[in-house]
Amino acid sequence: MISALCLGLLLFIPVCNSFVQGGPSPLSVYALRLGPGEEILTSLFKFVKEKRLKAPFVITCVGSVTKATLRLANCDALNTNEIIHLRERLEIVSLVGTLNEEAHLHVSLADKIGKTIGGHALGDLEVFTTAEIVIGELSNLEFTREMDEHTGFPELVISPRSQNVTGV
Amino acid sequence: MISALCLGLLLFIPVCNSFVQGGPSPLSVYALRLGPGEEILTSLFKFVKEKRLKAPFVITCVGSVTKATLRLANCDALNTNEIIHLRERLEIVSLVGTLNEEAHLHVSLADKIGKTIGGHALGDLEVFTTAEIVIGELSNLEFTREMDEHTGFPELVISPRSQNVTGV
Amino acid sequence: MISALCLGLLLFIPVCNSFVQGGPSPLSVYALRLGPGEEILTSLFKFVKEKRLKAPFVITCVGSVTKATLRLANCDALNTNEIIHLRERLEIVSLVGTLNEEAHLHVSLADKIGKTIGGHALGDLEVFTTAEIVIGELSNLEFTREMDEHTGFPELVISPRSQNVTGV
Repeated sequence: MISALCLGLLLFIPVCNSFVQGGPSPLSVYALRLGPGEEILTSLFKFVKEKRLKAPFVITCVGSVTKATLRLANCDALNTNEIIHLRERLEIVSLVGTLNEEAHLHVSLADKIGKTIGGHALGDLEVFTTAEIVIGELSNLEFTREMDEHTGFPELVISPRSQNVTGV
Repeated sequence: MISALCLGLLLFIPVCNSFVQGGPSPLSVYALRLGPGEEILTSLFKFVKEKRLKAPFVITCVGSVTKATLRLANCDALNTNEIIHLRERLEIVSLVGTLNEEAHLHVSLADKIGKTIGGHALGDLEVFTTAEIVIGELSNLEFTREMDEHTGFPELVISPRSQNVTGV
Repeated sequence: MISALCLGLLLFIPVCNSFVQGGPSPLSVYALRLGPGEEILTSLFKFVKEKRLKAPFVITCVGSVTKATLRLANCDALNTNEIIHLRERLEIVSLVGTLNEEAHLHVSLADKIGKTIGGHALGDLEVFTTAEIVIGELSNLEFTREMDEHTGFPELVISPRSQNVTGV
């Protein structure tokens, strides 16, 4: 019993500290333009679902928004952090992250004096004039999320893509 | 007459709110290094023209500049917004967007205390020590721009690439 | 003697002002997830070495850190600039650059009020909850670095990949 526990701990530690990885994979790429009033996260979720993307991520995004809801830094699972609702015209100067069912996107936005504000994109990214977005899809990998007890969040798992799934 | 107008409105709304999209496309990738004194936008335009790129965009860019001219947020076609001319050494911490004839690039730049300033790159991005830039080109798509009366700007249009153009 | 000097100057100017470039290249792509306590630069160097990547760069990165050591702007070879050691939870809102043996990465990080700070990533980027990173590798190019007397730094050189190297 004790030795099984020790073995468990021994096995556990490397898994905890080693990184999860996948590739090399070929890449398929999509480009989108969203127009005034469209919400970026909703549009991306819809796009990923329609195209049945399995391992998508943002390559680049340029545009402007009239709103944004961000969760700021210093957040952990027990002490959920400040959420801010911006209501002003902002330029998108970065949008980074992965786009599977539970997307993980961070954004930085520049205001009318050039000051940038950044954090975890929760939604409400309503396009002002345009959003031009390039999406990459890893052809032979699959992104899923599993609850990670060390972080309290569902974290990215990278797997080889199942080749024999019927109908996909 | 009225019904034609109604039909026009009905047809108009989905076009306005639906997004323009293209892909999946294979990707060709280029890497560049610009040296001291080179201007980033001019160099990218020249590169895109020389290589006859049809659907290019920035994948990543790292480097430093001695100047930058940025158009700040809160800009619309009727009320053109503040333009600032920065004259200091700045680190490029993001450069995002598409690179067809009328490129649409946003940048964020960090100063000597780490403060970042961001906006629409208008030009004057003169390299201080280096700029390492990776450019993606979507092999089967083409980026053009058409005036969008809803925004007052020429906005991105994504089309399948013409296969039968002579001499290209 | 004078004409040789003139020739030298004539040859020098175009080299100084022309950019170094490579491509088009196909792209192979890798995805990683780093967990709590892992250091991003160390993990990326290890990954690049293990996979024997020759022309790697960051496509996207999303995550959070508890620390960061950044070299701020206004740095040149003679007047090495301020280095700051951040010790707080920060969201990664951009990570840009190339990843050969002497990587060149810039980062911008958002704090608990959304304020972003950016600069050259020197190390110490210890993961708080997660870091999801997508790495591109240019299949037919190779990145090396050579000292550039105009900048005082080892700068990026982009070369066609040697096809006949034994054992690679």
